[in-house]
Amino acid sequence: MNILVTGAAGMLGRKLVAKLLAAGSVTNRPITSMTLTDVGGFADVVPSNRVRTVVTDLAQPGVAASLIESRPELIFHLAAVVSGEAEADFEKGYCVNLDGTRALLEAIRKAGPGYCPRFVFASSVAVFGSPLPDIIQDDQGLTPLTSYGTQKAICELLLADYSRRGFIDGIGIRLPTIAIRPGKPNKAASGFFSNILREPLAGAEAILPVDESVRHWFASPRAAVGFIVHAATVDTSKLGSHRSLNLPGLSATVGEQLEALKRVAGERAVALVKRVPDPQIIKMIGSWPRSFDARRARDLGFVAESSFDEIIRVHIEDELGGVLRA
Amino acid sequence: MNILVTGAAGMLGRKLVAKLLAAGSVTNRPITSMTLTDVGGFADVVPSNRVRTVVTDLAQPGVAASLIESRPELIFHLAAVVSGEAEADFEKGYCVNLDGTRALLEAIRKAGPGYCPRFVFASSVAVFGSPLPDIIQDDQGLTPLTSYGTQKAICELLLADYSRRGFIDGIGIRLPTIAIRPGKPNKAASGFFSNILREPLAGAEAILPVDESVRHWFASPRAAVGFIVHAATVDTSKLGSHRSLNLPGLSATVGEQLEALKRVAGERAVALVKRVPDPQIIKMIGSWPRSFDARRARDLGFVAESSFDEIIRVHIEDELGGVLRA
Repeated sequence: MNILVTGAAGMLGRKLVAKLLAAGSVTNRPITSMTLTDVGGFADVVPSNRVRTVVTDLAQPGVAASLIESRPELIFHLAAVVSGEAEADFEKGYCVNLDGTRALLEAIRKAGPGYCPRFVFASSVAVFGSPLPDIIQDDQGLTPLTSYGTQKAICELLLADYSRRGFIDGIGIRLPTIAIRPGKPNKAASGFFSNILREPLAGAEAILPVDESVRHWFASPRAAVGFIVHAATVDTSKLGSHRSLNLPGLSATVGEQLEALKRVAGERAVALVKRVPDPQIIKMIGSWPRSFDARRARDLGFVAESSFDEIIRVHIEDELGGVLRA
Repeated sequence: MNILVTGAAGMLGRKLVAKLLAAGSVTNRPITSMTLTDVGGFADVVPSNRVRTVVTDLAQPGVAASLIESRPELIFHLAAVVSGEAEADFEKGYCVNLDGTRALLEAIRKAGPGYCPRFVFASSVAVFGSPLPDIIQDDQGLTPLTSYGTQKAICELLLADYSRRGFIDGIGIRLPTIAIRPGKPNKAASGFFSNILREPLAGAEAILPVDESVRHWFASPRAAVGFIVHAATVDTSKLGSHRSLNLPGLSATVGEQLEALKRVAGERAVALVKRVPDPQIIKMIGSWPRSFDARRARDLGFVAESSFDEIIRVHIEDELGGVLRA
């Protein structure tokens, strides 16, 4: 199995690569070679005769074609500019999130006929915007209200059309908001959902820019990587023409997040969360999804966490060496 | 009022231009200049100091920028490759229908700040594909099942995002299938809906490739041009973030079309329709919309025909000089 991972130096990309290398196989087929690509560098990947790293920009002419020259049978397309950055930098968002994806799809199409790789696309619940029902059903229409969500929705439409035409065997997975996102805060507008847990767990202060009643949709980084790998194994004939899936996740309020934090790390941790309302984030979040039915994905075997206590424990295990030092 | 019309040499474009020139104004503002552009030539337009024709390809570098150099306050974007051609020629469809639109939107964005033209986009009911309810509601999601429908859906998403960001004042109108389309059959898969009326009305045979029970959604060319002009006058603050509208139309079966033909032109005309089933068209049509609620557009003042007898009479008036010769 020859695999290509884009955005491989990102948070999910690094975890995905580690999981793939540890497993050594996908769908019972040994991984013979992996190409990892990203615009950023690869700090923690050791290149080998099995693993090749390529620091490059997918949207540049010729780059996508060179990446699929070896005809990878499985492509994980994770490369993206996050929501806050796509909103702040209109051109960069469209260049990376739309043009990059389209360049990759076009390179695959032009490499055919006879080449039709499994193409796992990391989409987002940001393809949905208000008005939304409390529980979003699997047939909810695409109504993005951010440039990021628009770019992801457009890529989903391309994914479906390229799949229908037989150029790729595509599957789009609408990832819940990832919490607890490790490392430093990034430019995602949803970052505070992670900050208010990660920072107090490490004994540091964090800013809460919205009300505790705000409800949102979550999965841990571990669950997200599980989704991505599982998407490579799904029988796509069951997807029909609708190639993108709402994934299972955990619907929780900020208040419920803080209660779980209290249970796991005590009152002292919760006291580190400072309330500083941010009108821009409050406005954006008001249009975001709160909960999903996700039956279709659950029936296809996708599994997420069922409590924030569990999500916090996953963070402690995967990021803090299993020990809470605070 | 300075106006730009793309696809101005097409069937709807020609009729739109004629209507605008006859009216001399839009929203009570006199038309001072019009730029008409198309990849094809302008057979029946007389250039004047008020009307400029430009034969060019929107998707080529620099073309869109030159077209909006004079900062038209109103843009009718009709240029498109039709459904059958977009399906047959994948690259041409994406180039004209997606890249051409995006080039125009980008040229407008880069001409700002302070420039935010009304942008009327001719979309299509092809943005919807099965499974569909018998009567499609205004909040139906985008589920195209053709490359043409995919391209139109993507452009709708761009229209909404560019409007939200303040680059354009966009409105997308999902035109029903146009019947009776004058002139020669084109490459639209829906062409037979017109052929089976237009040809017999002229004493010629026509091919019916589907069953008489097939139901679909129609408006006359005159109604379609009315929609396009009306879209220039709509108060877009009422659209909110959903900038594209299902338009009113007439839901009718092929059988009802033929009954109307019989009433207007007699049994002899109906006898000219030859049944030659076409599996490919039958398959495509099975996923197409059958009827719409379209309340939102009706509330905004969009009006369509209410019977096929009326649609046929419009054709006789507008295309046959008011006289049925057959």
